[in-house]
Amino acid sequence: MSIPIPAGYRFGAVHCGLKSDPELFDLSLIVSDCPAAAAGVFTPNLVCGAPVQVDRSRLPGEGFRAVAVNSRCANACTGEQGLRDAETMAALASRSVGGEPAQGLVMSTGVIGTMMPMDKVRTGITAAAAKLAATPSAFVDAARGMMTTDTFPKYAGKQMQLDNGKEIRIAGMCKGAAMIAPKLATMLAVIMTDAALTPQDAQMFIRTAADESFNCITVDGHTSTSDILLLLANGATQSTPLTGRDLQRFGETLQELCTELAVKIPQDGEGVSHFITLDVQGCKDGESARKIARKIAEDVLVKTAICGADPNWGRIVSASGTAGVPYNPKNVSLKLNGYELFRSGEPVPFDKQEVSGNIRENRNTHIVLQFGEGGADVRFWTTDLTQEYVRLNSDYTT
Amino acid sequence: MSIPIPAGYRFGAVHCGLKSDPELFDLSLIVSDCPAAAAGVFTPNLVCGAPVQVDRSRLPGEGFRAVAVNSRCANACTGEQGLRDAETMAALASRSVGGEPAQGLVMSTGVIGTMMPMDKVRTGITAAAAKLAATPSAFVDAARGMMTTDTFPKYAGKQMQLDNGKEIRIAGMCKGAAMIAPKLATMLAVIMTDAALTPQDAQMFIRTAADESFNCITVDGHTSTSDILLLLANGATQSTPLTGRDLQRFGETLQELCTELAVKIPQDGEGVSHFITLDVQGCKDGESARKIARKIAEDVLVKTAICGADPNWGRIVSASGTAGVPYNPKNVSLKLNGYELFRSGEPVPFDKQEVSGNIRENRNTHIVLQFGEGGADVRFWTTDLTQEYVRLNSDYTT
Repeated sequence: MSIPIPAGYRFGAVHCGLKSDPELFDLSLIVSDCPAAAAGVFTPNLVCGAPVQVDRSRLPGEGFRAVAVNSRCANACTGEQGLRDAETMAALASRSVGGEPAQGLVMSTGVIGTMMPMDKVRTGITAAAAKLAATPSAFVDAARGMMTTDTFPKYAGKQMQLDNGKEIRIAGMCKGAAMIAPKLATMLAVIMTDAALTPQDAQMFIRTAADESFNCITVDGHTSTSDILLLLANGATQSTPLTGRDLQRFGETLQELCTELAVKIPQDGEGVSHFITLDVQGCKDGESARKIARKIAEDVLVKTAICGADPNWGRIVSASGTAGVPYNPKNVSLKLNGYELFRSGEPVPFDKQEVSGNIRENRNTHIVLQFGEGGADVRFWTTDLTQEYVRLNSDYTT
Repeated sequence: MSIPIPAGYRFGAVHCGLKSDPELFDLSLIVSDCPAAAAGVFTPNLVCGAPVQVDRSRLPGEGFRAVAVNSRCANACTGEQGLRDAETMAALASRSVGGEPAQGLVMSTGVIGTMMPMDKVRTGITAAAAKLAATPSAFVDAARGMMTTDTFPKYAGKQMQLDNGKEIRIAGMCKGAAMIAPKLATMLAVIMTDAALTPQDAQMFIRTAADESFNCITVDGHTSTSDILLLLANGATQSTPLTGRDLQRFGETLQELCTELAVKIPQDGEGVSHFITLDVQGCKDGESARKIARKIAEDVLVKTAICGADPNWGRIVSASGTAGVPYNPKNVSLKLNGYELFRSGEPVPFDKQEVSGNIRENRNTHIVLQFGEGGADVRFWTTDLTQEYVRLNSDYTT
């Protein structure tokens, strides 16, 4: 896969001793050679990690030079010391490329409630800074350094031509295994572009893109302490902040990129046997559609049914009724992998063996739930719930 | 167990062909010899079964003679025909003891989306009416007729002396396997007393009692289409509606009885290896405590951790932060089976092997999460999430 690396960014990843396997990267450094505008979207969890607190206090803003990312330790529920450690990590990252402490950012996932091993992290950041490169392989290595129990590095990139003819690039990397990997929570993503954006535009676009992508994936409904999505815009290719039609098209491209990245998270499920695409259609408004989709996508009974190739559509319809969204049940219809099982509030006779066989044979499951309330649609992505998932998530933290 | 059967009630249970095993009862009839006041609490699911719709339209009210209860078929998502079938079941039950159609009630659980086999039900109600008896064994048989994959019949009873010296009785039966048994959803309960209550008092007390009992148990967070809790008060022993101190003490006794019944549901978990009691304390108000408790009690990561005897307290604290309730994380402390693991927002060093061993050796797990926001406490009951649970819930509906 050829990745269009945005100009003016470099990447370094090392093993600094956080993961037990010395072959695995566990610390990544992402730097921008010129100061970048940055914006972020953070976990709404009240119990949030120290990196979330540090980054949130700085963003949206300008002048950022570096992001330090580590796996294995979330630096969450770690009190005042944890906050100092996160600030130190951001400062070390920025200083490693000649920046000021406040020009750094930090992202961590891993076990909650253990202190960050700062000796290892300090050594790691220095080593990663010595390896910085702008190559695709350095980019992929940085994506590897974020991984916890992800089975593959997750990244994507896009190019876009501005009205003035210049090609700008947007690339991103993310990790996510929240649900699959018990102890090693959660979602992190960094998007980089070599266009310039005002911090306000960056913030608005990353928020909108997140709502239609990362906020539409769910595996276990547990919003972690550590979720961070960052957007960096360094203007290395296009130094005047985007406006008008360019800005609008940038937003669309960012949206596509975020969706591409987000979908990789539920697709990479250890213990997952089905990847589920859920379309909720015909709702009064987007918020209603989203609430219903989330309720279904997180429902344990729906997820175990799909795992067992059981076309038990009653669970899906029933879950939708508990979302707190008013609708007329007589206008509800449901399709599963193309088979219509429920039409206008009445069951449709179907061949259970055939539909079950269809679910069993396809890793991708497609549910379409149609309401008669309006024109708002939403698409969510989730996974089934398997015995293997439970086995993985029952493992002891040590 | 000796059950204080309230005066003026009779019970009959039969196998009418809904369950495949002819040894198992699948239809129960509960009758009151004199007309009873009745009140009910129903599922808030917008997609609700036909029995829920029928009973809800009649309650609270007076003059009820009979309740028909069946397992295996929920009569939910069954359209207009389903509604007519539920009305017919209520009418058949009432008529079997000489009542009018509107004096009957009906409760059904089982598969969603299949039509009620009315021939079997009709024959069953006639047969159950022929067996009606006021004995404890008939009472227990009626509790068995409700069972789906419950492993034991669930019932309890209490006696209470009124200020005038009379002994009144309150007894109840329930079923619940919502989460354990995939296809055969959900919670049903009937409470009977031989005291008299006005329908309004019955409604108020059953609602209050439900809030502190049946609404504090959760296994998978899926509020089914079929949950019904009924209270019947026939006045056979005390014909003047209770007032004042008697009424207040009745409410307390009803509360105790409902809690005793409710707790039996998560305790009876096929595939469950831990029964979890969760105390959320020191919240600003009851609603806040309840929201936090529900979020934790339904969290897949918390439940798998307990299954694996993993003292991964970060998941519990993290889940509490996503409940949408504001609080100061610095005032949060957590105990697990008596071990303090988190104090005032800071991790407490502990022996992981010891705490893990303690969880593993005890079927009962006790979590106490303490906040510093006020004086409101709540207790919830839930279960762990095991591989066996997933296996059971992945079974095919056929």
